[in-house]
Order: sequence, then C-alpha cells, then structure tokens
Amino acid sequence: MVDSQRLPSWNDGAPKSAILDLVGRVTTRGEADFVPPAERIATFDNDGTLCCEQPLQTQFFFLFDRVKELSARDPTLSERQPFRAVLARDYSTLFGLGRQALYELVVATHTGITEEDFDQVARNWLATAKHPKFGRLFKECTYLPQVELLAFLRENGFKTYIVSASGIDFLRAFADEAYGVPREQVIGSSAKLRYDVTDSRISLMKLPEINSFDDREAKPLNIALHIGRRPMLVFGNSDGDLPMMRYAKSGRGPRLALLLRHDDAEREVAYDREFRLSPLAEALDKAEDYGITLVSMKRDWNAVF
Amino acid sequence: MVDSQRLPSWNDGAPKSAILDLVGRVTTRGEADFVPPAERIATFDNDGTLCCEQPLQTQFFFLFDRVKELSARDPTLSERQPFRAVLARDYSTLFGLGRQALYELVVATHTGITEEDFDQVARNWLATAKHPKFGRLFKECTYLPQVELLAFLRENGFKTYIVSASGIDFLRAFADEAYGVPREQVIGSSAKLRYDVTDSRISLMKLPEINSFDDREAKPLNIALHIGRRPMLVFGNSDGDLPMMRYAKSGRGPRLALLLRHDDAEREVAYDREFRLSPLAEALDKAEDYGITLVSMKRDWNAVF
Repeated sequence: MVDSQRLPSWNDGAPKSAILDLVGRVTTRGEADFVPPAERIATFDNDGTLCCEQPLQTQFFFLFDRVKELSARDPTLSERQPFRAVLARDYSTLFGLGRQALYELVVATHTGITEEDFDQVARNWLATAKHPKFGRLFKECTYLPQVELLAFLRENGFKTYIVSASGIDFLRAFADEAYGVPREQVIGSSAKLRYDVTDSRISLMKLPEINSFDDREAKPLNIALHIGRRPMLVFGNSDGDLPMMRYAKSGRGPRLALLLRHDDAEREVAYDREFRLSPLAEALDKAEDYGITLVSMKRDWNAVF
Repeated sequence: MVDSQRLPSWNDGAPKSAILDLVGRVTTRGEADFVPPAERIATFDNDGTLCCEQPLQTQFFFLFDRVKELSARDPTLSERQPFRAVLARDYSTLFGLGRQALYELVVATHTGITEEDFDQVARNWLATAKHPKFGRLFKECTYLPQVELLAFLRENGFKTYIVSASGIDFLRAFADEAYGVPREQVIGSSAKLRYDVTDSRISLMKLPEINSFDDREAKPLNIALHIGRRPMLVFGNSDGDLPMMRYAKSGRGPRLALLLRHDDAEREVAYDREFRLSPLAEALDKAEDYGITLVSMKRDWNAVF
C-alpha cells in the first residue's frame, strides 16, 4: 500500500487519486500492472510546473542580471540592442525585437565560457537573487506539492527527471538543492561544446551554437536519447509538454500525464491560455482526447510554496 | 576500508592498487579526498574494454546478420555493394569500400525503424548470436575482472556508465544484463529521431542521419551533455578513449584513467598499436604524460571471461 500521507499539500480529488492509483498499481508485486523499479521513470517540466514562471521564467532574470554584469565590463553594450532594452528593463521593446534578439542575449550571457565556470556563475546568482513578487530566493519559489510528489515518487522506486526548455547548465546549478534531482537527471536546452586543451588541462567551452532547443517534440526525442525509456508519469503545464505527455501515454501499461493549471491569483498568479511564454491552448482543448489529467492549483493544492 | 576481496580476478599490482587507493580515498568520511557519492562517476568504454572486440566489434556481427535478414526480404540487395561483400563475408573488400559504405550499411540496418522495434530486433539477435572464436553468446564475452570492477564501484557509491562509439540503442539492449548498467547510463553513437504519430500512438523513428558519433572528443562532450559531471574514473582501451581520460584526469581531486592492453594471445587475443578498429598508438606513447595507468590483461587479470 502506498502512503497517501506523504502528499500532505495535495487535496483529495481526481489528480491525487490518479497519482496514488498509478503508484499503487506499479509497485505492488504480484499485481498485473507491477513494473520493476528500473522502468519507473517520471519526467517533469520545470518552469510553471515545479516553480513559478511569472512574470518571467527564472532564467530571464538571470540573463538580465548577467547583461548588467557584462555591461559593467563593456560599457559599449548599453549603446546597442537588445542590450539597451534589457538594461532599461524595457521588456515590451525587448520582446518586440523577436527571436534573433533573444538568441543574441543567450549567446552573450550563456556562451564563450566553460561549463564549469558557467555553473559557478549560475550558482553565485542563485545564492542571492530573489523573485520580484514573492521576495524569496528564486530557487525557493518551488511548489511544495511538487517537491512532495517528487520525493513520494522516489520513495516508490521512481527515477525523477526534469525535462525543460530552460538551459541544461542553468537547471543543473539548482535542481539537486531545489528538487533532489541530480545533475544527470536534468535534460534541457543545450549549446554545442568544444573540447579545449589549455596547459594540458581539458575544459569544455560553451559555443554560440544551439545543440538542442528542448521544447515540444524535442522533449520526447531527448528523453529517448538521455533515458532510453518511455516515462510512466509526465507532469507539465503547457503545449510545450504535450509531445512528452503523449509519448508517455501511448506506452503499454499504466501511464499518467498531468497538466498544471495556474488558476490561483491569490496564492500565485492566474494565467491560462494566453500566457505568451508557455501557451497551453492546445493542451486544454485536447486534454480529454489525450487522456491528460488536469490539476488545478486552486482546487488541488492546499499549499503552494 | 574498501574490501579488496571484491576484485578476485584482479592480480595484485599497480592497477589494482591504484583502484583500491582511489576508492578508499574518496569514500572515507573525514578524509581530505572524500567525495559525496553523487559525484562518484565512472565511465567505461565498451568494445575491447568490457568485452571482446576481436575479430570485429559485436555490432558488426549484428549488422552482418541483419543484412542477411534484410536481403532475404529484398534479394536485390545481394546484387550491390556494400551488401554483396557483407553477404559473401568478404571483409577485405568491405573495409576497402571505405566509410561511405559502412555508413550505408548502418543506415540500412539501424534506421527506418522505431527505437522500440530496434530494441526488440537487437535483443532477439543477442539471445542466440555466438562469438565465432569463443563459442559463447556475444553478451557473455564480457571480461570478468571488469564486471567485478563495475560491481565494486557501485558498492562504493559510484554510478557506472558506458561511453562507447557503438550505437546507443544496440548497447542498451544488453548493458543491464551484461554489466548491471541501466539504459539511462549508456551513452553511445546515435541517430537523429523523428516524433511520429500513427493512429494517435507516438513512436520515435530512427532516421538515416547521425546525431552523434561518440568517439574521441565526442566522448567528453557527450559525458557533459548526459551526466554533467567530470568522471572520477575512466577505463578505455584505445585512442578513442583518450579525450575522456584526459577530461577526467584534469578535474580536481583524485582521478584515475586506466587503459587495457590486449597482450594475452592465449586467453583472448594479442593486439596492440596496429589494430585498425581501435588504434592505441597515441595512448601508449602519451600514457606517462597524461598520467594513464596501463593494465595488462596477461599480467593483471587472473581470469578473463
């Protein structure tokens, strides 16, 4: 029997029942649906699924602060876009500049640095950077019910993974501390790397070239590459997570795909179909067809942070 | 104290001492070199390091048998190269045809099939295919001292990985059974994949396009992508393993890089610098410079299989 007391921040209801049912069936030896622990894989999106993504996803705040830091060293940055818009916190101009501008910002702030140095830069930032609305460290803007769920799944033999469009190196700098997910169980967007030899010491340089943008169809493709198994449970909050949900759901045996709806203006932020950074119109329209279980932050969680 | 009795097939000598020393130092709490289990990563090459690669690497035998199988369905294959050479077991013609021919063979035998179907094809083959010299199943042509070493490392908190130029899906079909290495801890060469929807069911199709050829510099780059940590111990047997060895060795704290030399004609096969499929001239010339510990099959192992 699974211990439902291990999900204290989850209210009784359909999503909690579905989780307990799945975990009960796959972990009970002798049952038809029993699955060996090695095959119990759970994948979670990060932004908006495990932590707050409003008003912007955490990595944007990191990126903006890093532009500030870089411009202190190279004042000419402030004279040109998209850096000028970032420094002026002029987000409407910034997002109006389009994808190429965003790409330039990512290149300037996330590449031309070794993996290990970037990890240190990200850790330093995460140690002090606070969310503008909640006033707590970004890495503490995690959803308590999800941290409980991750731990509950691991206690039941699941291996828990993060599969996110955010940068893999950025996520790895806090996933273990925030969620108990080790670096090798983090999948994210990645830059190509270069093998460098300097004074006989090897380092890996992050290059201004995308290796994988880990969103939509790329999520199941990267799951296949990194894990090599269909997930049994997938948790997401946007259309970007639909392909990995459908990939999981069309495997044999018990499978669960959960979609978090942000409908709690009081405790978090209410946004739904219209959120530009992670739209979920298709997921909502197709939830029933695809067998996706909708989770309401307001109804299903008795605590958020 | 580490239990050296757990490596019964290893003779006393420099390599065994180096292994016991490393494991002792990183696992003893309170010691200066103690490393938390999460950071204890060991990566092993497969062919020629964990199992026999002579006269050819296992995947070639699979590929040849698969050509035979495919030509039974499409007899026209036997009329053209490189298939004709394969069907005639005319290896000198085959290898004379060069890389493009090999690529065509890989495309024909390893792509245009879903990942899950390929896994089943590989498992079926591995269930009966036997090594021409040793007369045992290929998946049992593993080196006993290495299987002991993998288990010993795991007992001491290490996570053990395979990092091989062989195909990731092929390796995953036997790595768990042969070595106790789960699918998600296998890194190998990979094809690009396509997300396919057929009657609402999602499958991932292996495409005739290389995603990564996991050899030489690609090994540390893929280690960074999949694991995100510098390995503490690396075991290889050719120049293709040098970059991951050097990557490991230039990390902070205790690190060990081991290179297996095939010098035992009686129990296995004696080959060294000249082996075309995995040359090791550079590794031998630079072993001392790079701090690589040479392992002699003849001297350091009291059993091979």
